Amino acid sequence: MSGLPDLDQIRDAAARIAPYAAVTPVLRSARLDALAGAQLHFKCENLQRGGAFKFRGACNAVWSLDDAQAARGVVTHSSGNHGNALAMAAATRGIAAHVVVPEGAVRAKLEAIEQAGAVLHRCAPTTAAREAMTAELQRQTGAELVHPYADARVMAGQGTLVLELMRQVEGLDALITPVGGGGLAAGCAIAAHGLKPELAMYGAEPTGADDAARSLAQGARVEPFQADTLCDGLRTLIGAPNFDALRTHRTQVITVSDEETIAAMKLLWRELKLVVEVSSATVLAAVLKQAEHFAGRRVGLVLTGGNVDLDALPW
Amino acid sequence: MSGLPDLDQIRDAAARIAPYAAVTPVLRSARLDALAGAQLHFKCENLQRGGAFKFRGACNAVWSLDDAQAARGVVTHSSGNHGNALAMAAATRGIAAHVVVPEGAVRAKLEAIEQAGAVLHRCAPTTAAREAMTAELQRQTGAELVHPYADARVMAGQGTLVLELMRQVEGLDALITPVGGGGLAAGCAIAAHGLKPELAMYGAEPTGADDAARSLAQGARVEPFQADTLCDGLRTLIGAPNFDALRTHRTQVITVSDEETIAAMKLLWRELKLVVEVSSATVLAAVLKQAEHFAGRRVGLVLTGGNVDLDALPW
Repeated sequence: MSGLPDLDQIRDAAARIAPYAAVTPVLRSARLDALAGAQLHFKCENLQRGGAFKFRGACNAVWSLDDAQAARGVVTHSSGNHGNALAMAAATRGIAAHVVVPEGAVRAKLEAIEQAGAVLHRCAPTTAAREAMTAELQRQTGAELVHPYADARVMAGQGTLVLELMRQVEGLDALITPVGGGGLAAGCAIAAHGLKPELAMYGAEPTGADDAARSLAQGARVEPFQADTLCDGLRTLIGAPNFDALRTHRTQVITVSDEETIAAMKLLWRELKLVVEVSSATVLAAVLKQAEHFAGRRVGLVLTGGNVDLDALPW
Repeated sequence: MSGLPDLDQIRDAAARIAPYAAVTPVLRSARLDALAGAQLHFKCENLQRGGAFKFRGACNAVWSLDDAQAARGVVTHSSGNHGNALAMAAATRGIAAHVVVPEGAVRAKLEAIEQAGAVLHRCAPTTAAREAMTAELQRQTGAELVHPYADARVMAGQGTLVLELMRQVEGLDALITPVGGGGLAAGCAIAAHGLKPELAMYGAEPTGADDAARSLAQGARVEPFQADTLCDGLRTLIGAPNFDALRTHRTQVITVSDEETIAAMKLLWRELKLVVEVSSATVLAAVLKQAEHFAGRRVGLVLTGGNVDLDALPW
């Protein structure tokens, strides 16, 4: 479903996913506050079902379908957290999930998606092959496409975490999320500004995948590019509606190097006692790097996921 | 303070520490439930202030002192979580903390204790040297000894986590904690049976430090022994009042190998997305090893701490 959701749709999403999604805790650390010179409130989506915020959007999409649509199942392309989330969401409704994955994707991730009950469809690792196979599956099965980020239902689902966060923490001044395709950033910006128009929105991006930062700087989406970052969740080009949302909501994107992100990841593990993935750590890296934006303010930081290969840590 | 606390003292402790200690969340995992064939409720004391349950006991001890006692400060011997917890607790009251540590203790842990505001006193790494220096400090300063586990105030503080847990989870059938000196096990048993006498109490011990299991089997505390386990928090001989409490409360101790514990630690990191220390993982290792005790039951598992050297993981 194209376009952007509004606050009411995000509220509807919250009601729709409430029976299935976790209300994730908000954690704090006196040491990290001292390091940042700000009051940091970490929204722990690594503790969400499936280990990532993605379940919120996938679950909202699955439960937005009418019964006839639902009976034909859902389809997406993602070898990462969204594929897994859609598989888990489809299982909550007992419907089929088809997930298109590129040859060469990490085996452990594919096994997790299969374990969650989805049917895997392998294709060549190109955008064209992926889109062709997804379209072919839609034709064959009638399954509904649930795009990982350029989908209003998905964005509305991700935005529900802000409704929670703003109930859990009073008086937030700023909010920062990682930016990949921009589903999270857009959903969160719409929810946050729906409730508090003066809240400052920030995004965090790896320097090796700074397409959102460059797109905002030049006033139009950049061309597809080759990402060069360890942050596997953030290599995607920002989506078209997502870019519009970032612009409308005056989101400032801060770029951080992988070295800065890995240092921040280790700080999060050590101080918060949480397993978070490298993409999640961009938000703390950004807050520490450009501390002047956040000094003395109440800042919400979205820790997006915790699906990490414990045998291959980046330090 | 010697002897054992009662339920009222644990309730008093809960009120006393409420302004300073965190109410820690209880997390669950469908996959771990399936593996165990039981309903597992993990009480996340790794998210407690200082990264371990120890803050509860230390904080209760510090705030139990009258003003004259408090003015003379507190003293203990511990290079681990209790030393750090006492330093942090003393800081909440603005009083002095003296911590006796053996030569050769891990530098990072000592730095943390100093950062928390305590004065370190180094001694030879023997029980005699440690006790002599502690006694000498008490004489010189009049500081109150807060023993790591054989102290009723400390046990009462640790027991407060059960009051929380039993509010957070209805109908618990069993509870399992790691057993080192036994302050946690005793406090939890007294609190749990005070509220629900039929609840089954379990302890988890490394096979290389199975003094509580052997003591219970022979009906008397074993002699001091040489521990051989990676679980640095569980190498201590069980305390005398602690042993009495375990016997009175019919605590069954399950022993697990370090290999079983490390496998359980990795499961906890992967499924719960939590950084927990190796000692904490003994509880899950024990539940998986002797699953017949827990089948189909609601089990509380205390995850004791999350202070881990991220550069030296045991896998």
